Amino acid sequence: MKYGLRRAFMFRAPRGVDLLEYIREFASKENIRAGLISMVGLLVNPSIGYYNIEKGVYEEIKLKGIYELLHGSGSISLRENKPFVHIHVALADKNGKAYGGHLIRGEVYIAEIIIIEFIEENQIKQENQ
Amino acid sequence: MKYGLRRAFMFRAPRGVDLLEYIREFASKENIRAGLISMVGLLVNPSIGYYNIEKGVYEEIKLKGIYELLHGSGSISLRENKPFVHIHVALADKNGKAYGGHLIRGEVYIAEIIIIEFIEENQIKQENQ
Amino acid sequence: MKYGLRRAFMFRAPRGVDLLEYIREFASKENIRAGLISMVGLLVNPSIGYYNIEKGVYEEIKLKGIYELLHGSGSISLRENKPFVHIHVALADKNGKAYGGHLIRGEVYIAEIIIIEFIEENQIKQENQ
Repeated sequence: MKYGLRRAFMFRAPRGVDLLEYIREFASKENIRAGLISMVGLLVNPSIGYYNIEKGVYEEIKLKGIYELLHGSGSISLRENKPFVHIHVALADKNGKAYGGHLIRGEVYIAEIIIIEFIEENQIKQENQ
Repeated sequence: MKYGLRRAFMFRAPRGVDLLEYIREFASKENIRAGLISMVGLLVNPSIGYYNIEKGVYEEIKLKGIYELLHGSGSISLRENKPFVHIHVALADKNGKAYGGHLIRGEVYIAEIIIIEFIEENQIKQENQ
Repeated sequence: MKYGLRRAFMFRAPRGVDLLEYIREFASKENIRAGLISMVGLLVNPSIGYYNIEKGVYEEIKLKGIYELLHGSGSISLRENKPFVHIHVALADKNGKAYGGHLIRGEVYIAEIIIIEFIEENQIKQENQ
């Protein structure tokens, strides 16, 4: 689907919140219907998923401790007219060894988040009228 | 090189296609001359390259099985007046262990792709005339 | 904080320079006050940091050899009215094994860099006057 480019958001999530939940609420509050997410930071006890295609479920991998968030990437799109946030993360432990998966949960120690908001082309015309 | 920002594309690649090939064809069809690529998903038997600078070639690493695509990132640029797609991937296995390299090949199980299209500054003026 | 979208830059860093230093100088020269950074490439002897929250310092991990830069991601923001660049990297060795952390230092062998520049909303109005 084609979009126009609308706005960018650059902000930090507060320490202690759940990263995914925080972005969901942010997208909802700002009424972001489509966009790219890119972020770095430091997460506490991140929980990541590996999708088991036979069972059709995410198998949860619970990492313990503090991990560098090398990159959180994903998208915001609309599902049932609400912003839906999907994020994959790459993480690293204190030895620099990397892990990753579908983000299920992760407590923010530091999170620097960028969202580039897209806008449906028919909405652009409405806004310019 | 400096660009203006033009459009964004957010879409899924169909199951079973080769990810790199699909993006190349998409860029060609949409006549994208420059842009950023960012994606997440799930790949089957991804093949990644490590560049051997002494030999000047990519050494191929053939991963077997299904890997979370933590992030595929890269660019579209023009080579010989055709869209050229260059992508690096970070992947994770079922234990959350991460791998990565230059994307050579990878069958899509799921791929959620974002392309932010750039436009040369002289083209912006032409389009506005 | 909310921004408008201004320009995109897509360029290569020259072989042999320090990646972080080069981006800092680029941002300074182009007067980029806010933006997203996304890049791929090949780095020589990258040095990455893991943040020790108890000591409040980065512990340095010095990788030796040549690593695929799977992704460098981060942001440009203003600190004391100068562009401040913060980058996390995901890297892979010749076996495809991934590492990562906060980018401290890394010599460029290849670096393909994209910067999407943001602009404060009050600046947009000034430029349009």
